[in-house]
Parts: sequence; C-alpha cells; structure tokens
Amino acid sequence: MGWGDLGAFGEPSKETPNLDQMAAEGMLFLDFYTANPLCSPSRAALLTGRLPVRNGFYTTNAHARNAYTPQDIVGGIPDSELLLPELLKKAGYINKIIGKWHLGHQPQFHPLRHGFDEWFGSPNCHFGPYDNRELPNIPVYRDWEMIGRYYEDFKIDLKTGEANLTQLYLQEALDFINKQQGSQKPFFLYWAIDATHAPVYASKQFLGTSQRGLYGDAVREIDDSIGKILRHLQQLGISENTFVFFTSDNGAALISAPEEGGSNGPFLCGKQTTFEGGMREPAIAWWPGHIPAGGVSHQLGNVMDLFTTSLSLAGLQPPSDRQIDGIDLLPVILQGKLIDRPIFYYRGNEMMAVRVGLYKAHYWTWSNSWEEYSKGTDFCPGQSVSGVTTHTQEEHTHLPLLFHLGRDPGEKFPLSFASEEYQQAVERIAGIVQRHKDTLVPGQPQLNVCDKAVMNWSPPGCQKLGKCLKAPESDPKKCSWTH
Amino acid sequence: MGWGDLGAFGEPSKETPNLDQMAAEGMLFLDFYTANPLCSPSRAALLTGRLPVRNGFYTTNAHARNAYTPQDIVGGIPDSELLLPELLKKAGYINKIIGKWHLGHQPQFHPLRHGFDEWFGSPNCHFGPYDNRELPNIPVYRDWEMIGRYYEDFKIDLKTGEANLTQLYLQEALDFINKQQGSQKPFFLYWAIDATHAPVYASKQFLGTSQRGLYGDAVREIDDSIGKILRHLQQLGISENTFVFFTSDNGAALISAPEEGGSNGPFLCGKQTTFEGGMREPAIAWWPGHIPAGGVSHQLGNVMDLFTTSLSLAGLQPPSDRQIDGIDLLPVILQGKLIDRPIFYYRGNEMMAVRVGLYKAHYWTWSNSWEEYSKGTDFCPGQSVSGVTTHTQEEHTHLPLLFHLGRDPGEKFPLSFASEEYQQAVERIAGIVQRHKDTLVPGQPQLNVCDKAVMNWSPPGCQKLGKCLKAPESDPKKCSWTH
Repeated sequence: MGWGDLGAFGEPSKETPNLDQMAAEGMLFLDFYTANPLCSPSRAALLTGRLPVRNGFYTTNAHARNAYTPQDIVGGIPDSELLLPELLKKAGYINKIIGKWHLGHQPQFHPLRHGFDEWFGSPNCHFGPYDNRELPNIPVYRDWEMIGRYYEDFKIDLKTGEANLTQLYLQEALDFINKQQGSQKPFFLYWAIDATHAPVYASKQFLGTSQRGLYGDAVREIDDSIGKILRHLQQLGISENTFVFFTSDNGAALISAPEEGGSNGPFLCGKQTTFEGGMREPAIAWWPGHIPAGGVSHQLGNVMDLFTTSLSLAGLQPPSDRQIDGIDLLPVILQGKLIDRPIFYYRGNEMMAVRVGLYKAHYWTWSNSWEEYSKGTDFCPGQSVSGVTTHTQEEHTHLPLLFHLGRDPGEKFPLSFASEEYQQAVERIAGIVQRHKDTLVPGQPQLNVCDKAVMNWSPPGCQKLGKCLKAPESDPKKCSWTH
Repeated sequence: MGWGDLGAFGEPSKETPNLDQMAAEGMLFLDFYTANPLCSPSRAALLTGRLPVRNGFYTTNAHARNAYTPQDIVGGIPDSELLLPELLKKAGYINKIIGKWHLGHQPQFHPLRHGFDEWFGSPNCHFGPYDNRELPNIPVYRDWEMIGRYYEDFKIDLKTGEANLTQLYLQEALDFINKQQGSQKPFFLYWAIDATHAPVYASKQFLGTSQRGLYGDAVREIDDSIGKILRHLQQLGISENTFVFFTSDNGAALISAPEEGGSNGPFLCGKQTTFEGGMREPAIAWWPGHIPAGGVSHQLGNVMDLFTTSLSLAGLQPPSDRQIDGIDLLPVILQGKLIDRPIFYYRGNEMMAVRVGLYKAHYWTWSNSWEEYSKGTDFCPGQSVSGVTTHTQEEHTHLPLLFHLGRDPGEKFPLSFASEEYQQAVERIAGIVQRHKDTLVPGQPQLNVCDKAVMNWSPPGCQKLGKCLKAPESDPKKCSWTH
C-alpha cells in the first residue's frame, strides 16, 4: 500500500472508514517509513529491528539493487538474527504469523524455527507461477506443513481478481485471538495480508464495490477486516490491553497502475525507488485508553521501531550485542514526544538517501535503467523530474540533491547548491551519514544466489497431499537483480 | 488553494486543525470543483451561478485562453447579470464582501452597484505594481471609496512575506457579524481572502510557524481565522442558523512552487490548467444541528452551486429567465442525496473537458505553449504525462482522451480507445456535451479589451487622500492572454 491509499491520508474516494476510525481513535503517523522500497527486506527489518544491510536482506551482485525472496532464492533470514517473536517468547508470548512470510522458504528459514508458534500463509508472494508444471505453485502452510498451493487449492482468479484469501486470513486472526483468551497468555499476531500486491485480489462480496477498481476492492476488504479485528478486541474486552499498529512494507507499485497500482498521495514515484513514494507509509497506532484519540505525530518513524516498541511493551530490552536501528516509540505515542533520528533510504548495498528533520539528501539517484524504461517499465509514471528521477545511476555524494520535504513533499525542487540553507543542512547531514557509515557492519548478503533446485518442489507435507514435485539438479547462480 | 492543502484532504504536515475540525463537524466534499482554472472567472461564476462563458468572464482574443481582471481590463461584471447579493436583498439580507472582488474595477462594476451593502478590500489582486509611479498601486476600498493602496498604506513586505491583511479581514468579519446581531437581519458574508495568492503573505505571529514555509504560514493564518469566525458564531448562539461553506477559486499555482505553491494532492498539474489539479477544490459545508457531523459526499459539486444553494436557504428561486448552471445542494447536504450532473472544464471560450460520473473526457489538452515552457513557465512541474500535458493545443474532439478518476485520479493513464469501457463512456458523455453545446448562449466577452487609461489612477476618494494619479490617454487594445 501507499501513503495515499487511506481516506485519513487523503485518498480521494475515501473508502477506508475502519482505518480512518482507527486513526480517529488512535494516532496517525504522517512521517513513517518502511526500511526498504521492497517487501522482503522491509519485513526482515520489521522483525529484526535492523536495516536490511545489517540483517543480510540485500544483494552485492550489482550496485544499489532491489532484491527479494522469489522461490529460487537460496538465502533467507540467518539464524544469527534475533526475531521479535523469538524475544517475545521470553516474556511468555504466543506468536502467530498469518499471511506472507517472505524471509526465505528453505527449511532452515521456516517461521516456526524463528520464534513463531503458528503460521497460516505462504513463504513467497502469490504472483506466478500459475500452472504448477514448469515451476511449482507457491505452497500455503499451516504451521510446519503445506496444506495446498495457490491457484490449485487456494484459488485466485486472475481474470476476475476473485480470491477469498483475506477472508481466510481474517478468520484465522479472529480464531487465534479467541484461543488466546482461554490460555490467558499474551500474544503477538503478525497479520501479513497481501491482497494489494499484484495480482490484486478481493472476495466476491467486495468485487466491484470500490470507485478505485480491483485495487480499491482489495483495500476495502482489508479495511473491513481490520474493523472486524478491532471490534473483536473490543467485544472481548481486551482492547485496552492490546497494542495494534497498521502499516505497509513498501509504497504503492506504480508499475501496476492504474488497475492494480494504489496511491502514494503527493509523493514522488513508488515501490522500488528511494523517493518518498517508495518508502513513506500510512501508519496508525491504536490502543484505547492509552493513546489519546485523534493524535497526529510527525515523529520520523520506521517499521524497525515496531521491533523495539513491541519489546518495550513486553517489558523486554532489545539485544545489546548488535546494532538495533529501531527506536522505542512509546514516549512518542504515549507522551507526544519527538525523538531526533535520521531515516536511511537503501537500495541493496547502497545508502541512496537520508532524511534528517525536514531535509532529505539524495546521495544517489536511480529510478530504473534506460533499457527497462524504454521497454515500458516505469516506476514513476507521469512523474519525470529532471535530474531527480534518473535512468542511469547518478552519484551525488559530493554534492547531494537536497529537498525540503515540508515545502516540497513531492521532491520536485532541489535546493540551490549555492544557498546558505543548502550548505547548513548538508553539513549537518554529512556528519550523521559519516557516523552511520563508520559504524556500519554489513551482514552476509542473503539475496545473491539463486537456484531452481531450492524452489518449493516438495515442501514438508507434500506427500500426504500427493503434491510433491521433482526438483531439478542444483545449479546455483548469481541472481539477476535488474533494478 | 489546492485540493491537497488541508489536513483533512491529506496534506502531509496536517497544519489546519480548524478546517479539519470544521470538516469533522460538517460535510467534506471530495469531488467539488471551481468553475474555471483562474480566479476572476471562478468568482464571477460563484456570484452569478453561471459558467464564465455565459456571464462574460472569458476572452475570444485567442482560442482557449485563461483571462482575468488585471487593472488595465476594460470589462467587468455586466449589469445584465444577477448576482447572489442582489437576489438575497429581496429576502432582506445585508451583504458584505471582505477581500478581493475581481469582477472589474471600473465604477460601473463596483460591488456596491451589484448587491453588496458593504465592502472592505480591493478590486484587483495584490500582486504588482509595487511602486505607484509607472503604474498605480492597487487601491483598498471601504465601501464606495478607496482608503489607501497596497504597499503604501496596506503594507506587504515582499522580502519577509509579512502583511497583516488576513487579520484585518478577520476583524472586519467579526465586526460585521456582531453588527448584524443588533439589526436582527439575515446576512451574507463573502469572505474573499487572498493570502495564498503570490506574493503570499502572513502576519508576524504566523511567519515561520509552518513546516511548509511561507505558503504554509498563510494557510495556518487562514485556518486560524476560520476557527475564530466559527467559534464566534457559536458564542453568539447563531451557528445553528448560519450556513458556512469553505472552498477556493482555483487549484494551487504550481508555477509558484515550492515557496508559494501549495498542493493539489494526488491530482495532475494546477492553476491555469483543466486537469484535476487546476479545478478540483477543497470544500467543506458547516451548519451544526442541520448537517450531520463527519459527513463525506462524492456529489460532483461546483462553486456555482453555492449561488443556487444560498438562494434556496433564503427561500428564493433562482432567476428563470436565463440558464443557471449551479444546482441546489441542500438535498445532498441535508439528506445525503447524489444528483447526477456533469462538470464542464473551460479555458476561455473552449470546453476543454467534461466529467460525467467517474469518467473525465478531454476534448482539448494544453498546459501552456512551448515558448513559455522553454522559458521556465511550467504549470505541471515534475508531472509530464506523455500525450496529456501537451505544449501545443491538441484537439481530441473526435476521440477524446478518457480517464477513470476513481482508478486514476492523477490522469496519467488514458483508457484504450479500443476498449468497450471507452466506447460506452464516450458515447454517454457525447450526448451530454451535445446538449450543452446546443443550448449554450455565450455572453458578451468581458476580458477582450485592455487599456492603461482605465487603471486605478484615481479611484473615488483619492482626492481626500491626495492619492489621485493622472491617467494616460485612452488606447484600447486587445488584451494579450498567453496561456
């Protein structure tokens, strides 16, 4: 989803009454970011509290490349990383992931080996393959074993966009919450739905109900589901004891627009880019009785903060043996404080940009290659900003492109290099970047090697279902990350 | 102001708590339009309920040109037009205009000759001239006579942006409202502030208080003033008997961005264009006890509707001897109805586009000329959409460019001419356009002739102030409207 996809964030059809209500009852974050312009690295950062370049969710195959976890990826979340659910276990939490995992699909990366107690969902994205012949369809797991595959047992109609997956995820969430009421144990639910990822889908009852087409139908179903989850918490009488946070893992994918695209509001470009449209996200915190209703925060926030904040809520300390990038947002949420901290915008192994206060400095710019662009792959359709949305990798490390995001949220008017404002801001930012780079210890890159042999040919449980497929011989290669 | 300038409409710094509160207590219009991408014609349409092409606020000097009322304009609002305050008088209303009139500055066009009882403000925009030598500075009137001039008696500091005009306008409004309480007569107040028009200004207490620079300071002062006016109505106990509507006369001027630009949210381009950014406006209706709080309407609305709606509120009928384009919005506002009606987007003498439902068909496209564009005048900075934001006047009357504003509010993805959806939508729209054009009787164009002799050399009252200047000999010429 993009920053502009909710009514509360200015989407012109205003079709998200439940999320808007969640914001009215809670706190809206207007300057909240994901850790990466792509899904897998952002999700790894969310669960580890660390930048992808630290936790290994990046590639060194080429400079500044977006990489993720397709089913031929060999890597995944390293055992050395400590995930939020692993840590919450120490405080007695029961942890469940519903939906897309995306931190690696080989056995050693299974979410139940990394702190989750339960799982209903899939290891990879639900796009392709769609025929289970040349390549295996993506499996859907319940806990340790697969219980079927997309397009076979879990239908997604690519023509109509119909799929009831969000309803399944909703029911799983409600059931899980109910079950914990019996056990009286605290719980962590990672509700990782993916209906707004192409191919976008919605249940029959939502198809055609939005002004925004299929994408809007999917948003409406997610909005409706979140409303049901929040009301369920209230009906169970545990809403004042349950912290809920809504956000997304990357900006709306404008390459899929308009049919499956979404909105990044007034921000430049979208998914895959380090412009605001790629990484600034809708974000809402909800905790009745604790968070003052109708709050609005300009705290620079990041999905990695959810790691640290959740630990804080559970009375735990973040690990002290490693760099944690997430900060504890409780002083922001409960006391309205503002914490000074930068936001780093990475693309693979390169820090492309950094935000400090209202200034954003681009040290590198790149939308995507001329070759791709000339073939119609455009991450910034209708948004060509001369010298900013570049199709060759442009280095600005000696003279960063500087924007003031208050006066110019759309990153269209770089400040004059000669201005005093530029010089003062860049000087301050340079010190912050220097400290960041000086202390950075990159993790072992996990997204370098691809091998068809590691695909989901025979996931655990496939025998029972008669759904095992024969893997080809191993032939590991450098993954090709084109943008 | 632009659609995206208020927090309630998704402006990322969310600095309009009073207008957002007004929306929360009233009704937000998400699909509300002005009548023209430029100020004078929109204001003439607001006060007459008629399209500028009917009321004469357009030019035929060249095809599809934006025109307005600079101080060398010879024309103005014709006597044959019936203005809202003229009609409201029949129901006993006292009418006041505070701020920019802009319907002509020659004596015959004076607002007190067109139904207003009181005036505090100026006949033209507050930009240039600034020295009162070569050309007269714009006068400020109280009722029939000028009481000073901009930059002389009513200071606007072009370096700092400081001017206390909005505070003067606020005090005038509060005083006027107070005075009517004594008379027990109904009143109409047209509060036509202009602080967000370049050169943008704000009072000292607001300077530097916004994340958005000077433009944001001006928005904050307007927001604060509106809060004070609404609270004043409540304190006087007349809020349930007072209908208040907030909107603007054109989209944010991106040519003035980022310092004095404003935001059109997710919409394409801005002021001067017939893309959504030029004409879709923030709009809020407020009437406690009558309008249900927190309402949101997708009614296609237009500033011309305020004419008809206001008459309806006063128990009056619109004139029956002429075409009125505004509709009565009371069924929408009070009963949540949706009325089917098109929105026409004109540029001067040409209907450039029309919106019917969620479809918008462009029959002509033009941002501005290559010549201007190459010199740096850009109405769509960073928003070049191939084949859409054109720099020659492109005719599409036989095969209109069609957009679906629900799926594609940014007008970036024209529908395929070959699609069934295109053919059905265009066929429906064509009938509506045909009926519109068949019955259209254009008014006598008022914005064709310019003459330095008609400038504000010696406005009434100048003798008392010793501020009369000598006019040059009359030398009427065709005004030059370049875009």
